[in-house]
Amino acid sequence: MPVGTAGTVKALTQEMLEEAGAAIILGNTYHLYLRPGHELINRAGGLHEFISWKRAILTDSGGFQVFSLGPLRKINEEGVEFQSHIDGSSHLITPERSIEIQVALGADIIMAFDECCPYPSTHEEALRSLKLTAGWAERSRRQFDRIHSSRVEPLEATSRENRGDSFGPLMIDRNDLATVNPGQAIFGINQGSVYTDLRERSLEGLLAIGFDGYSIGGLSVGEDKEAMLRVISHIAPLMPSGRPRYLMGVGAPEDIVQAVEHGIDMFDCVMPTRNARNGQLFTRRGRLNIKNARYREDKGPIDDRCGCPVCLRYSRAYLRHLYASGEILGSVLNTIHNVRFYLDMMAEIRQAIELGTFARFRTCFLADLARGQDPD
Amino acid sequence: MPVGTAGTVKALTQEMLEEAGAAIILGNTYHLYLRPGHELINRAGGLHEFISWKRAILTDSGGFQVFSLGPLRKINEEGVEFQSHIDGSSHLITPERSIEIQVALGADIIMAFDECCPYPSTHEEALRSLKLTAGWAERSRRQFDRIHSSRVEPLEATSRENRGDSFGPLMIDRNDLATVNPGQAIFGINQGSVYTDLRERSLEGLLAIGFDGYSIGGLSVGEDKEAMLRVISHIAPLMPSGRPRYLMGVGAPEDIVQAVEHGIDMFDCVMPTRNARNGQLFTRRGRLNIKNARYREDKGPIDDRCGCPVCLRYSRAYLRHLYASGEILGSVLNTIHNVRFYLDMMAEIRQAIELGTFARFRTCFLADLARGQDPD
Repeated sequence: MPVGTAGTVKALTQEMLEEAGAAIILGNTYHLYLRPGHELINRAGGLHEFISWKRAILTDSGGFQVFSLGPLRKINEEGVEFQSHIDGSSHLITPERSIEIQVALGADIIMAFDECCPYPSTHEEALRSLKLTAGWAERSRRQFDRIHSSRVEPLEATSRENRGDSFGPLMIDRNDLATVNPGQAIFGINQGSVYTDLRERSLEGLLAIGFDGYSIGGLSVGEDKEAMLRVISHIAPLMPSGRPRYLMGVGAPEDIVQAVEHGIDMFDCVMPTRNARNGQLFTRRGRLNIKNARYREDKGPIDDRCGCPVCLRYSRAYLRHLYASGEILGSVLNTIHNVRFYLDMMAEIRQAIELGTFARFRTCFLADLARGQDPD
Repeated sequence: MPVGTAGTVKALTQEMLEEAGAAIILGNTYHLYLRPGHELINRAGGLHEFISWKRAILTDSGGFQVFSLGPLRKINEEGVEFQSHIDGSSHLITPERSIEIQVALGADIIMAFDECCPYPSTHEEALRSLKLTAGWAERSRRQFDRIHSSRVEPLEATSRENRGDSFGPLMIDRNDLATVNPGQAIFGINQGSVYTDLRERSLEGLLAIGFDGYSIGGLSVGEDKEAMLRVISHIAPLMPSGRPRYLMGVGAPEDIVQAVEHGIDMFDCVMPTRNARNGQLFTRRGRLNIKNARYREDKGPIDDRCGCPVCLRYSRAYLRHLYASGEILGSVLNTIHNVRFYLDMMAEIRQAIELGTFARFRTCFLADLARGQDPD
């Protein structure tokens, strides 16, 4: 899932995302709640309508962003009190409130509210955090059911895209917020830091509550790659195979391929978009930094094995010039390529799995990546 | 002509420009000379190749930008000495050098080197400046002919787009610069500030030299609109009707429509692109500022009479949110709309002229514009 923090996958039009093959994008509840506000988006008909995106959307719970605020937030049993990074205003997000906001935004998949346990944490700290998250997961699920069961069932509970105009929005009893997407799914989030016993305990709790999908949170927050893979390889296989398994906030292409090996189905990461804006481009032979002087007169495409519109038309030399000149077009073109690289990679992974050739794909893909583009 | 200062019409991909109907864009010689350098662009095969733009390009002479540098430049008979706004390095641009750079860039239309007379200037100052520009025009033309006649004629002097691979670049004798575009045209620039006698004198000089097209420079530099229109209405009809008449750096939609009335064929202006990035959008009912609070929940398009991809898909409310959040996509979408607005306006003007209904078009168009969108 390309990350569309504030209702836009940075530097891309929705048309570009469609052309790149994005079937689902992620929106950040924290950002959208603060600006332009979930009530405004709800009155606009929900996030799909507001940003004009007909395909799927997932919203996170806001927990991770709030956790990232550091000294600006206070966590207690009830929820998280924090100050806006935009204007310093004070807010309280509880599990109930997070779900209410996410229902108002109307994404197709929404997330239970969790505390992302910082790294490093002792076993004791991670356990305390885990208990908090377990309680919040239950409250999230309860609030989700309360809102969604209180709505009048639509005549035809078809998918959002086929719903057409016959189905009007239904009002939630609080704050005049409409349930714009009655077909929402809710995922639970597995926590427990790097401790596999806590990860198991967390998963048991989630399974007892029951969710439409299960995700792994609290990784890629500072632990080394070995620890990350150890947790994934331990906990992913224990998640229900018939439900989506979602690894949050990961990651580098090599991490994704290895996580898929352990059964992960879904990913989100800012890496393709953020790195694009910083001039780092992904290729099948590793990353390259377009600001590197060696690309000054390079007439070749970013990646000669890529079929994206940027590689078909523009040279490394031009992209380097755009980056050096601080031109918006540099961010746009770099992002088109990186997002397409990630989506192509996922398509190749799916194909390899279907063909039963994933093990070979994985070996070749990782070997190619390791060759590297830039000597420096 | 949308302005593509540094080899990019800011915030647009070349695909977007094509879709908007841009048949020609402008590149700034001053900027491209400094970064990435005309030699580099020449080695890449010229500006068309470097930026991947198959349609027409016009480059200015660099005179206006150098003039804009103020205290960073010194003008004498030989040319202009200036310091780069990027790194402070010293450069001398003469008429000969400007043409050499523009031939190396390989635009389809290039401009004689001129001094843009500041406003206000006394008649005496304007006359002195005019004499300088007249001498530079002759030296520009001579250098143009020297370079273009020294080249070996290609077997088929077809248009650039049809040239294909059979025609390789030809070397100029100096600096190993190739004449990448043997079909270049050169325009002369009319100066003379707001003094119609000087404008006439300038035009006589240009006509004596002979150019492929004639442009009016030194307007929209601080004089009032009445003075600008007085100069245009006086000098444009005196320019050869069989050659393009190009009004440089103008302007607002209402200025363009009025200049067309006096016989102007071509325009360039940063207004559609720069204003887009500042949130100002052009509509058939005047401009609107998307940051205005009244658009917070406005589900309508920028302009309900516009068929651009932005108006067909995105709401004012979303565009306002993107602007308020400082998102790149705001600049991209606003620019698509504004450029399309200008190109549609030009297409409507051409159609009205062909139909013999320009006078009525002009009246209605100006009346609509004057209605205004924003009360504030």
